[in-house]
Amino acid sequence: MPELRRDPVIGRWVIISTERSRRPGGLRTQNESQGSVPCPFCPGNESKTPPEILAYGPRGRSPNTPGWSTRVVPNKFPALQIEGDLHRGGEDLFDRMDGLGAHEVIVETDDHTKQLEDLNENQVTDVLFSWRDRIMDLKRDPRFEYILVFKNRGTAAGASLAHAHSQLIATPMVPIRVKQELRGSDEYYEKKGRCIFCEIMRAEIEKKERVVEVNDDFAVITPFASRFPFEMWIMPRRHSSSFETSTDAQFRALSRTLKSVLARLNNVLDNPPYNFIVHTGPLKANQLAHFHWHIELMPKIVHTAGFEWGAGFYINPTPPEQAALYLREVNNGPTA
Amino acid sequence: MPELRRDPVIGRWVIISTERSRRPGGLRTQNESQGSVPCPFCPGNESKTPPEILAYGPRGRSPNTPGWSTRVVPNKFPALQIEGDLHRGGEDLFDRMDGLGAHEVIVETDDHTKQLEDLNENQVTDVLFSWRDRIMDLKRDPRFEYILVFKNRGTAAGASLAHAHSQLIATPMVPIRVKQELRGSDEYYEKKGRCIFCEIMRAEIEKKERVVEVNDDFAVITPFASRFPFEMWIMPRRHSSSFETSTDAQFRALSRTLKSVLARLNNVLDNPPYNFIVHTGPLKANQLAHFHWHIELMPKIVHTAGFEWGAGFYINPTPPEQAALYLREVNNGPTA
Repeated sequence: MPELRRDPVIGRWVIISTERSRRPGGLRTQNESQGSVPCPFCPGNESKTPPEILAYGPRGRSPNTPGWSTRVVPNKFPALQIEGDLHRGGEDLFDRMDGLGAHEVIVETDDHTKQLEDLNENQVTDVLFSWRDRIMDLKRDPRFEYILVFKNRGTAAGASLAHAHSQLIATPMVPIRVKQELRGSDEYYEKKGRCIFCEIMRAEIEKKERVVEVNDDFAVITPFASRFPFEMWIMPRRHSSSFETSTDAQFRALSRTLKSVLARLNNVLDNPPYNFIVHTGPLKANQLAHFHWHIELMPKIVHTAGFEWGAGFYINPTPPEQAALYLREVNNGPTA
Repeated sequence: MPELRRDPVIGRWVIISTERSRRPGGLRTQNESQGSVPCPFCPGNESKTPPEILAYGPRGRSPNTPGWSTRVVPNKFPALQIEGDLHRGGEDLFDRMDGLGAHEVIVETDDHTKQLEDLNENQVTDVLFSWRDRIMDLKRDPRFEYILVFKNRGTAAGASLAHAHSQLIATPMVPIRVKQELRGSDEYYEKKGRCIFCEIMRAEIEKKERVVEVNDDFAVITPFASRFPFEMWIMPRRHSSSFETSTDAQFRALSRTLKSVLARLNNVLDNPPYNFIVHTGPLKANQLAHFHWHIELMPKIVHTAGFEWGAGFYINPTPPEQAALYLREVNNGPTA
């Protein structure tokens, strides 16, 4: 059973994933397998993953057979495990919990050669619907406090398979970064009575210099204190603290925005590795006036050094205004 | 002039280092230069660095000539700049300051072929003395609130030159990670009247399972909630919140401990890239009863993925008890 442990000084939780443990020599991350081994996410190889949890496809298709267009399966090497009760324990300074949670993989397409941004608008919308549907389902489990939806693309960004996929982790606590955002935005709301994210978005749209694109439903900006070159935030224009309660029209708009933003990124930086992560409110919070869900997108093009790790203090060589300029002016369609 | 910017939501400061800015195509980190280009840190090439700030060597040696054994120079591509006043400014939500600070490089040896842990005890002690001497000097500058001493070894850990060196950055604010530690340890002290780091060390030494080594002056442990495989903390046995006020005997003991720990790491993981960072108290705080200086050492052997970045929530595949076991049992001398 994996274990959740809390740092006694700063309160950050860590997953000690004993199931994934390997001897020192085997520790280095392997590169993406590019095809020599049969891809477990390709149609016809459904038996190479744990049985599917959800799939979109034609009526009458049998589970775990080809024909699907989006497919969700449990992670074969889960960081957390779904079975069991929530044992909280520990001694003295050392708090721990059983590593209870869900860890799922969303296979975004049946086509091994396509990346998320290559899919058409309806297919990307289906990926978003699958995130929503899984959140809605897992939300009913009272053991969970938070669900993280994220995507790692490319080995340098932590992906171990090349076939387009995203992931979801349900956890019995709220992660520290989200807690910091909740605290910071709550303090602002207490003082001003307004959502700080709405305020940031309003100021950025007015200023224009850090705007990548804006449409009726979403704004994409390079944040003022960007940690990484070409970091972007995708924010819904209408205030909401939860991703999963968006309307179908909003998901369709997000699909278009995501396709456009990833195309811009690929065209400016030549298909870089990247991570994105959905920051949404805690599961048990309902709608919060002070928190605003958003997606943080981080290209992985510079090595992060000890200074950053150890101090939480980042050095970014590309001013976000300059990044926004490049991203705004580049073609937002497929690479020629 | 570089700029310091504060994230409006969570309060984290970022250095936007315009001086280092490059066009998108040139952004990817370069590999360590291994000798095709003359090494700016080798004796005879003193003119390839900015003029030295400090050097240990024979009496009567002229500055910026060979003969030194440890040499401190300003970083040629500083993240922050030493000249100027501290202009705090900004508008609305966006706080910024001039990127004022110091960024120095400590060349740890004149021998291009040696790593820090290959140096003899006196030479490593000199490196520690040079950190102390630079902190003591920079501390007199009222513009600075904090000094970070750190080392990146290997390209994957962010090093851009192979010649053994560490770095130091003086900043006009306390970094967020250190602030979190100060806050967490202060809360504990308020409740219990004891230093949480002293308590952790006492509990770990009693338990033994996460101890790598202990001597009269230092304890080395793999922390309970380690974020990374083989992460280690080096902690002084005697309570003190500031690295730089250690006694000469303590620096000599730290030199031996550091050599031993790095040898263990090299022997278990085959000379991995790593980062370490000195966590010491804020410059203007004097001795704090609740904070305890220590060194955090993080081998860079796994890719950190979006989940970790975006959530501050780490997955560690190696339980610290297992890491401690390997590290404790391995030879702590040079690799055979």
